[in-house]
Amino acid sequence: MRCEVVAVGTELLLGQIVDTNSSWIGENLALIGIDSLFQVKVGDNFGRMEATIRQALERSDAVICCGGLGPTQDDITRDVIAAIMGVEMVRDDTIAEHIRDIFEGRGRPMPENNLRQADVPVGAATIAQMPGTAPGLVCPLTIDGEDKVVYAVPGVPHEMREMMEGTVLDDLRRRSGETSIIHSRVIRTWGYGESALAETLADHVESLDESGHATIAFQASGIEGIKVRVTAKAESHAAAEKIIAAEVELIAEQIGDHIFGYDDETMESVVLGMLRERGLTMAAGESLTGGILATRITALDPNMEVFRGGVVSMVGDLDGEDGATIAARAARDAIGTDIGIAVIGPSDPDAHPPGTVFAAVALPDGDHAKTVALPGVLSRIRSYAVITLLDLLRKRLDPAD
Amino acid sequence: MRCEVVAVGTELLLGQIVDTNSSWIGENLALIGIDSLFQVKVGDNFGRMEATIRQALERSDAVICCGGLGPTQDDITRDVIAAIMGVEMVRDDTIAEHIRDIFEGRGRPMPENNLRQADVPVGAATIAQMPGTAPGLVCPLTIDGEDKVVYAVPGVPHEMREMMEGTVLDDLRRRSGETSIIHSRVIRTWGYGESALAETLADHVESLDESGHATIAFQASGIEGIKVRVTAKAESHAAAEKIIAAEVELIAEQIGDHIFGYDDETMESVVLGMLRERGLTMAAGESLTGGILATRITALDPNMEVFRGGVVSMVGDLDGEDGATIAARAARDAIGTDIGIAVIGPSDPDAHPPGTVFAAVALPDGDHAKTVALPGVLSRIRSYAVITLLDLLRKRLDPAD
Repeated sequence: MRCEVVAVGTELLLGQIVDTNSSWIGENLALIGIDSLFQVKVGDNFGRMEATIRQALERSDAVICCGGLGPTQDDITRDVIAAIMGVEMVRDDTIAEHIRDIFEGRGRPMPENNLRQADVPVGAATIAQMPGTAPGLVCPLTIDGEDKVVYAVPGVPHEMREMMEGTVLDDLRRRSGETSIIHSRVIRTWGYGESALAETLADHVESLDESGHATIAFQASGIEGIKVRVTAKAESHAAAEKIIAAEVELIAEQIGDHIFGYDDETMESVVLGMLRERGLTMAAGESLTGGILATRITALDPNMEVFRGGVVSMVGDLDGEDGATIAARAARDAIGTDIGIAVIGPSDPDAHPPGTVFAAVALPDGDHAKTVALPGVLSRIRSYAVITLLDLLRKRLDPAD
Repeated sequence: MRCEVVAVGTELLLGQIVDTNSSWIGENLALIGIDSLFQVKVGDNFGRMEATIRQALERSDAVICCGGLGPTQDDITRDVIAAIMGVEMVRDDTIAEHIRDIFEGRGRPMPENNLRQADVPVGAATIAQMPGTAPGLVCPLTIDGEDKVVYAVPGVPHEMREMMEGTVLDDLRRRSGETSIIHSRVIRTWGYGESALAETLADHVESLDESGHATIAFQASGIEGIKVRVTAKAESHAAAEKIIAAEVELIAEQIGDHIFGYDDETMESVVLGMLRERGLTMAAGESLTGGILATRITALDPNMEVFRGGVVSMVGDLDGEDGATIAARAARDAIGTDIGIAVIGPSDPDAHPPGTVFAAVALPDGDHAKTVALPGVLSRIRSYAVITLLDLLRKRLDPAD
């Protein structure tokens, strides 16, 4: 089954907004086995929108239109789809009522043209999820005797995602005749390069390919490490989960503590969780990283219950792993926490390979330090250094892993 | 004149990479007055690439193909363009030599297939800028008796930009028959909402529209404030510059110290520049903002010559403008700098409007503080708070502005 994506909006063509929606949709279509061979951006122009959607319907089974569902005269996606379906628009009273309620709830008067959003092509269904004032649409139609479908979702990313996940992806799978469930899990790893990780798991991936039960894909994600996505197809969600759990266990046996988390977990969310669980507080000293560590952690711990404080300063004569350890202890003692961590650069960069950083953690049961040479420009080295330090702490908090 | 953008790469359709190139190209085409009515993403597939480029040539005068110029078998943009031109490919010895040199310079053996990148369709010219191993191409052709052109540039963003700025944009302007120069300048403002700024400048914009000398566009850019782009068209660069300088002066008279910088300047680059110029050092105290201020400033001052240090901590009982002032003085005294700055949230958030933050600067000639209520979710409030504090410092360093 093929599904094209049409992103609507003159602001996309003018580069005022980057179209991230099509990428997200393409990724999620691929995950359920649907090909997206073309993705087109087109401005808010009736003729060009109509031509684009018609062409997409000629070469594909389904089209997802993203954007152009707002209340202004520019927003004509509804009208264009009605024209292609060859039908009139009719006002959906339930939607109209809902839009009125939203404005009342905000205590604001509703401009009358907002009710345009409640106009629906005859024969189209509205999408149940409606996080904003624009309803999404499922518009079935027949082209040259073939059943096809056009979906309309808003351009606001979180509204689009909610409708895609709640309705469109399932509807596409149903239409594709696929009855099995596709489910996937992402294993988050740190410390491997992409090719080294692929090599380590090569035999396993090969045997998987033969069995056909699951597939594995690698995705290099910069300071987020390498993501390993395990995807399984099965008759039920439970069966797919079981295949994935078995896969994850096999992979964990091979790459062990390079795995720091799963799915939406990040290095800092994992470390914060471990500290919370153990009732430990932490402070950090940063020179090279200039506050990035504090920024990332306080985003998840805004009241600073676990991360009690950070010091950003040049460390003067401190150097090497010993220097980082002194900085970690100093942060711990200054703020009065259970744990101190620190990352510093060399005092004489010329005496070390480019990108050398020293990371140290001062724990209740002793200190641990690590030296690494990180690749890239300074901004990249700074970010990598933060993750390197958090990874050192993670491994020391859970040495049994 | 019309120019379409075709972004090539299966990874774009799969959402593994977000296509930011088309947005950048669209923005820069608009700046020189060229319409881009369609932008298409297509995978590394000969038939679909050929169909897409042919269709783009039917409805536009020029096509920019972005991506598919690498050394692997997947990279077929050169071949597709040669087929559309109806010509063979010929190896360009100068380019081949250059590619060999690049590999030698890196001390690495060159895989033989890298020379594919030196294959050029007969009749195409190579683009002089060549920051990587992939040359860009200018491929003139005739469609139904009309002269058209296809440009091929790499998908690597900085390589694409260098070729666009060095060759493609000028070539397009020349082909469009436009002999006048278009030049623009961005005025960076803080403290106005988009509609308030537009209202303040409304009379001025109207008189501009009548004179036709210059145009003004507003762009809301989140924590980067509102950008005001002044664009002028003239017979020479100097004449355009003169129009813009006069415009900027008129606008500055109306919005005064809401202007913090121009073009690529940021709030932190401007403040750092002012401190450097005055030979002043600075320290910061952060609670609410958790290190964002230190991160942004140290990115521009990695050796911490001006920004000597920061403290990230909860401030306990400190509250209000007085509390922020105490925190600013404490940071200054702890690190031993000329200036201390701090931003804190209320100790009892329920006692203040949502998003309330207190910013303070402790300067050699006295302290200054400010209370603001910032909109949005916490991550947004944190970022806005940093800019609010830096803007307070900026205005106090240059009260004559």
